[in-house]
Amino acid sequence: MTPHPLEGIFHPKSIAVIGATSNPNTGAFGFTESLIEYGYRGKIYPVNPRHTEILGIKAYPNIKDVPGPVDYVISCVPAPAVLDMIADCSQKGVKTIHLFTARFSETGREEGVELEREVLQAAKRGGIRIIGPNCMGLYYPKEGISFCDAMPKKSGTTGLISQSGQMAEEVGRYAALRAVYLSKAISYGNAIDFNECDFLEYFSQDPDTNVILMYVEGVRNGKRFLKLLQHATAIKPVIILKGGKGESGTRMASSHTASLAGSRKIWESLIYQAGAVSAESLEELIDLAASFTYLPPILGLNVGVAGGGGGASVLAADQCEAAGLNVIPLPAEIRDELKRKGSKIWDWIGNPVDMSIRDRVDFVPGDTLQMMAKNKNFDMLIALMNDPHHKRQKGTTAESYLEQFNLEAQKDKPMLAVIPEKSLGADEFDHWSWKVVCEVRTKLIEAGIPFYPTAVRAATAARKLVGYYQEREQSVRERKLPISPISAEKLH
Amino acid sequence: MTPHPLEGIFHPKSIAVIGATSNPNTGAFGFTESLIEYGYRGKIYPVNPRHTEILGIKAYPNIKDVPGPVDYVISCVPAPAVLDMIADCSQKGVKTIHLFTARFSETGREEGVELEREVLQAAKRGGIRIIGPNCMGLYYPKEGISFCDAMPKKSGTTGLISQSGQMAEEVGRYAALRAVYLSKAISYGNAIDFNECDFLEYFSQDPDTNVILMYVEGVRNGKRFLKLLQHATAIKPVIILKGGKGESGTRMASSHTASLAGSRKIWESLIYQAGAVSAESLEELIDLAASFTYLPPILGLNVGVAGGGGGASVLAADQCEAAGLNVIPLPAEIRDELKRKGSKIWDWIGNPVDMSIRDRVDFVPGDTLQMMAKNKNFDMLIALMNDPHHKRQKGTTAESYLEQFNLEAQKDKPMLAVIPEKSLGADEFDHWSWKVVCEVRTKLIEAGIPFYPTAVRAATAARKLVGYYQEREQSVRERKLPISPISAEKLH
Repeated sequence: MTPHPLEGIFHPKSIAVIGATSNPNTGAFGFTESLIEYGYRGKIYPVNPRHTEILGIKAYPNIKDVPGPVDYVISCVPAPAVLDMIADCSQKGVKTIHLFTARFSETGREEGVELEREVLQAAKRGGIRIIGPNCMGLYYPKEGISFCDAMPKKSGTTGLISQSGQMAEEVGRYAALRAVYLSKAISYGNAIDFNECDFLEYFSQDPDTNVILMYVEGVRNGKRFLKLLQHATAIKPVIILKGGKGESGTRMASSHTASLAGSRKIWESLIYQAGAVSAESLEELIDLAASFTYLPPILGLNVGVAGGGGGASVLAADQCEAAGLNVIPLPAEIRDELKRKGSKIWDWIGNPVDMSIRDRVDFVPGDTLQMMAKNKNFDMLIALMNDPHHKRQKGTTAESYLEQFNLEAQKDKPMLAVIPEKSLGADEFDHWSWKVVCEVRTKLIEAGIPFYPTAVRAATAARKLVGYYQEREQSVRERKLPISPISAEKLH
Repeated sequence: MTPHPLEGIFHPKSIAVIGATSNPNTGAFGFTESLIEYGYRGKIYPVNPRHTEILGIKAYPNIKDVPGPVDYVISCVPAPAVLDMIADCSQKGVKTIHLFTARFSETGREEGVELEREVLQAAKRGGIRIIGPNCMGLYYPKEGISFCDAMPKKSGTTGLISQSGQMAEEVGRYAALRAVYLSKAISYGNAIDFNECDFLEYFSQDPDTNVILMYVEGVRNGKRFLKLLQHATAIKPVIILKGGKGESGTRMASSHTASLAGSRKIWESLIYQAGAVSAESLEELIDLAASFTYLPPILGLNVGVAGGGGGASVLAADQCEAAGLNVIPLPAEIRDELKRKGSKIWDWIGNPVDMSIRDRVDFVPGDTLQMMAKNKNFDMLIALMNDPHHKRQKGTTAESYLEQFNLEAQKDKPMLAVIPEKSLGADEFDHWSWKVVCEVRTKLIEAGIPFYPTAVRAATAARKLVGYYQEREQSVRERKLPISPISAEKLH
């Protein structure tokens, strides 16, 4: 099998940054700086006629002056200088240019549209492939490639295809807070040459990538995209956040990446037909990334919930049900076990387990989580956690907090944790209770348990995960797919 | 006008805690401790036959041994001791008992149901009114009354009626993070005597309370509730979170407060008919409380959005539109002004204002917010903020961050801010960037600008606020209501 054309692009032996600068207040600065900072081991060639050295590296007046071959160019020159730059690159034998350069068709101006057309023609004539324009390009921490200093240095198994550079950065940064790290990411902007289809095709075959995230504003070729998406979802989950669904979002998508956003309905049916997973927001995209990274395939919807007080239990039940999970009544076997163990509320306690009604001696949340984990009626567990906040809880540590929850139960049943995010102010930032919450999250990460700020977000992320695997399982039964979710688990 | 019976209950001259204890690991502890800690100025009488002193205050073996009159009793005795306690209180001439005591009908057990019936009969015979059972009772910081040490000491103008004690506590604590403080709160549990109708009636006339929040699991008398709700919403906004909407939530509501939760549809039409505002989650309840506390009445849906990059602007447009706001195209007058001021992107920039496409010299978000604030086409503004995260942003302060945003614009137009909440771990807790975010929130509070963690939450909170005031304005036009939103504004 010939390697995908993007495989080489993600492994350049040398990178030139044309229009490189040592001024940290410019967008171009981050490219050279990140290659150094993230430990790129290939050759780095800053190109700028006004400097002989940039960030401690020898700079060249023109790409043609670079001594060795250049595999990959990052263009930071202004739009009017792009055609000359492409001509120079072509003479130099460059194969790929990432155009960070913007102000083309997205401006909505005739001259921008025209220049973009000429750029593509010039690149084709010169045998050059284009990423962009108007984008941040590659992120591949394993190879030491990043487009900005705020992206994690740690590698993971989630691939990201993002039309927007800002979204690429936000997904990278915010997913890391949930211990989801990216294998590779691509921000691809106006997509005049390589587009979402090429990236999807590449990531679906990429052995570094187990889950694919996409932020898409417009699709150039719907038919090809659907076909590739169907193919990709048969191998690994693809989670898509669509930008530009309504009238104003469509208008914005056009002025952002010159995308024709298409109608909401067509888009929804495309996602559905392809068996992909739809995210409604950046937050949900990351919730789903956490679920697909940390949870095994789940094929049933029955959930056991424990850990909250009365009101939280009522609301969690409502929210789980609204999200499409089944909050089944507490099975008789568990009641019997509680009775045998001497609980005085064995006949009263339900699912969710309302912790406020137990006697202190009865049980801790972890006991019921363990019983539910061992019980065949449950497909998954949700542990409701809280911020310790009473004076008597002062001195609580993440360890002592988590002792109440039997995290071991996850060995028998997939477990999701709910732990609140709140809009803290300057005073709360230093408060012991929120520090404990942060430390609990770190411990949950160590235990491999994904967490969500609310029950409804946990339930929705679980429901969509089940939907994906059920769909795939059915396709396998109908012999449409070569691989079952259970075998796919081994990919993780 | 005779004062409402609850008026006296919120102003007791003396409180006895029967079953008081100095053991901080019990639920009963918080009552006596909070009365001391929150500065209750009336007489406090701990009652417990096994102690002569509790938390430094003389304790009495029986309520009948208390020397002076007792206006209000908090009962922490176990359920089997309640009938005797009521008899004693009756002899003592007590007028109101709050039954923190639980394990009545909510257990689903016949004996619990029967005991609850007897409790009510005994109270009626003894001329005693009951709050509860199975609840946390009163919170009234101005009078130094609290039910737990984690509630804010600061008073505000938002009243809270909560069937669940846990929800009362969470609303109190979490609303304070958004600078929404409670005037008074009541947690009322099984509601065998005073119920949601009485509390709603009281809060609707209460001059301390400008906005009413409710967490309700069941309503005893739907017709009376609807009538009172219609009356209340004509005077001030009532925001309701309903617990027990689905099958499992209804089951849980029954085992939590013995509530018959009723169908989702009936509930939704009741809220709609009454002109109340519905919240779908605890988070939304607090979002709405922040909106109604900090925003004036808004009667139109046209929103101007500024401050985000490309992807964030596209998604914010989608989310505002999905929430029901109108993200109108940028008015010609603003384009003309940008052109006059020399902006090179006057023809390209839109609404939302995508900050990533401007030249650094063009403008800051605050300039466009100011233009939109002065423009008659906009009804409100949303400022998209972010966590500073680039190395070059190190040294950013809340002040320098907010300089880009012209918060003065809110003088001409209601402004909402969006600033992210994220699930931080132990490492991020100490990171400078999140500290800046927390400080920015504190500055926004000082400026009186409500903030929300996502654009969709800001937009939804704004949409529901507009809906409430539009409905009220229409009722005034149809002469159904005596007071217009504009006059009502003076209540705030």
